[in-house]
Formats: sequence, C-alpha cells, structure tokens
Amino acid sequence: MKAVVLLSGGLDSTVCMAVAQKKGLEVYPISFNYHQRHSIELESAKKVAAYFKVKKHLIIDTNMNRNPGGSALTDSHIDVPAGDVERPDIPVTYVPARNLIFLSYALGYAEVLGAEYVYIGVNAVDYSGYPDCRPEFIQKFQDLANYATKATAAEHKQIKVLTPLQDLSKKDIVLLGNDLQAPLHLTRSCYNGGEKACGTCDSCKLRLKGFAEAGVKDPIAYL
Amino acid sequence: MKAVVLLSGGLDSTVCMAVAQKKGLEVYPISFNYHQRHSIELESAKKVAAYFKVKKHLIIDTNMNRNPGGSALTDSHIDVPAGDVERPDIPVTYVPARNLIFLSYALGYAEVLGAEYVYIGVNAVDYSGYPDCRPEFIQKFQDLANYATKATAAEHKQIKVLTPLQDLSKKDIVLLGNDLQAPLHLTRSCYNGGEKACGTCDSCKLRLKGFAEAGVKDPIAYL
Repeated sequence: MKAVVLLSGGLDSTVCMAVAQKKGLEVYPISFNYHQRHSIELESAKKVAAYFKVKKHLIIDTNMNRNPGGSALTDSHIDVPAGDVERPDIPVTYVPARNLIFLSYALGYAEVLGAEYVYIGVNAVDYSGYPDCRPEFIQKFQDLANYATKATAAEHKQIKVLTPLQDLSKKDIVLLGNDLQAPLHLTRSCYNGGEKACGTCDSCKLRLKGFAEAGVKDPIAYL
Repeated sequence: MKAVVLLSGGLDSTVCMAVAQKKGLEVYPISFNYHQRHSIELESAKKVAAYFKVKKHLIIDTNMNRNPGGSALTDSHIDVPAGDVERPDIPVTYVPARNLIFLSYALGYAEVLGAEYVYIGVNAVDYSGYPDCRPEFIQKFQDLANYATKATAAEHKQIKVLTPLQDLSKKDIVLLGNDLQAPLHLTRSCYNGGEKACGTCDSCKLRLKGFAEAGVKDPIAYL
C-alpha cells in the first residue's frame, strides 16, 4: 500500500516519514518550492527522501504567496521575529492557507498514485499557533476529501489523512524519531535561511527545547 | 467589499466575474498556469481581467499535475476525446483535485486581501461529471474554510464561497452573461489548445449547445 507524505525537510515531517515507512507503506514524499525564505529546507527534504530510498520525490513549484505576500516566511520585507513561543497570537510566520494548499496537492497526488493514505506531521501541542495544524482542521479536510476527487467521490475509495504526531510534544517527537532511527541529522527547522540554524527563531527554540527535554543531542549545527 | 474570483478565461468564470462586479464588489481575479494543454485560455483570462479594469490579476504558476499526470488536460500523451456529454462516467479530462487546489489558493488570497467572498463559476447542471463541481463539495469546502485560516479561525471573519451559476444550465449562463454584458467574445472554452475552438470536444459541445438554446450567436471563432 502507498502513502503520500508531506515532507518539508523539518524534524516533524521526517519523523512522520519514518512512522509511515515503519508501518510497511510505500512512501511517496511531496515537497513544495514556494519561494519560502528558508528554501534551504528543500535541500534537507531531498536528502531525507534519498535516505529513505524512495521511488520518487515529487517537488511542486508554485509562486504561492510570493505575490499575495502577507507572511514573514515568504516576504523578505517582514523580519522573522526572535522566538517567543509563549505569546498567544498567531505569529507573522503564518502563511495563509498553506497546509490547506499542501494537503490539496497531496490528495490529488494520492489519487493519481492510487495511494490510500496522506501523512502530515502536524501537531497541536507545540504548534506555534497556526490554525491549520489543529485536529479540527484536519477532520474537516478529511470530510471534504471524501467529496473532492474521482477516487473518493465516484469510486468509493478512501484516502485517509493521518497525523501520527498530532498529540505529541516536541520532546515526544524527538524520542520517537530517535527510536525509529529517523535521519534527524539531515533535518532543518530554522525559519531563517542560513547554512547553520539560528537557534533563536520560534522554530529553533521549539526544536532545541524538544531535544533538551528528550535528553537527546541535536545533531545539526547551530550558529 | 472585495471578492476573489476564480477566472479561467472560460465562459462560466467570466459570467461569474460579471455577477460579482454587478453586485458592486471590488473583484480580484486569480488564474492558474498549471501547464494545461489549453494554456491559451490564460490569454483569455488576461483579456477578460483587463476588460473589467481590475486593480490586480493574480496568476499562480504551478507545475501541478505535470509530474503526477493522470489527466488529458495536462498530459500530452492522452488524447482529448471528442465530446460525448451523455456518458455517465467521469471523463479523462478530469484533473485530480483541481478545484480543491484552486479554492485553497483563492482562500489564502482572500485572507491576504481581507476579502469577504470567493466566487467560483461551478455548475452542477451541465458539469461534465467532475466531482469537485458539485454543491456537496462546495459546502464541505465552506465548512473547512471556517477552520483553515487565521482570519476565519482566530479573528472570526467569514470568507464565503459563492457559486452564482450552481443551478444554471449553459443556456441560462449564456443568457445571464448576455444580460450583464459580460465580454463573452473574449472567452475560451475549448479543451484543445488551438487558435480557434475545435467545436468537437466536450467543452465546445456544451458551449455551442448553450448558445444555441439561448438563441444567442457565439461570438468566438471555430474551426
């Protein structure tokens, strides 16, 4: 059986790949080049895909949000803020409708491949406040998926969206990844696009906290 | 008030633009260059946008389905069949998850613009059998939209997906377009990419039937 896996090259999606492969599924990663500031993460995605010896790694090029703007992750005029993961509002690093767009492509790809699963590494515990990482959002997407494609609407096939990391903290994700021997050394989480991770943005802070709490040494290089 | 309008350059989306503008909304068309075989329709979309004197016409470039394949509209190895609009199955011109992907971008764009509406010219009467043109699909998307973005999930704004052509036949759409003085002469509906419309594919047949039943002369050129 086949599974499409949304792979950013970050910690979460890489552990998600490891979970899907461990289940014996044939994994088909899909990644996006959306002119994100941290496009170096796409290089990580390629290395992770190669590590898993996948048959094919689909990379979708899209100029989404380069024109509309509105996010620090795609607009070079907005600074990525230093991390303050305790604040309650949605950060400027939020990209409008990103996970919805990514899942939509993944669903279409799953239909083409005849895959039964779409894996996405969202988690609602240490989730930075993005609305499209919440379980309610995923559930609504699943409801929609059953109506959206030829496979699901006319041929009564199921394409299930799975979120194995949904209830895990970053600490749990690090422990799970370690356990599954996921290639954590190839992953990138930093919002800034430098060769080494900055260690100070939201994403770096969450990651470092997770590794620290797990008692595992983060194998990547920091500034 | 602002409205994002999905504009393919075809008859339906152009009439949809006219409906939105007639309501006094500031229209923001969004079109897609997805390496469709009939990319000449993008030229029509540009002409239609210019006709409506829009502030901005957003064109999203994406290689969707060029790699995954699976549709006669994006894969040059599959022939576009001559029209037989009576057959009950979903035709090979179906593009996996296309309307879902388009609506997802439109929703993100609406959020960035602060628009309250997304218009899409789907109709379930003469709809060629695509699952993602049905009212059930649109309703499920609306349910999801309320959970998908910062605007709708956290700020309690509504972004409404409107489908003014949902219950109209092609005849009704032609009559409505004529009535609103929509630029029908600039539209393209043909699935084949020639300079002149083929007159024989599904889309041309539906269009010609609609004009004939409406008693309106189709202003575009046919082979």
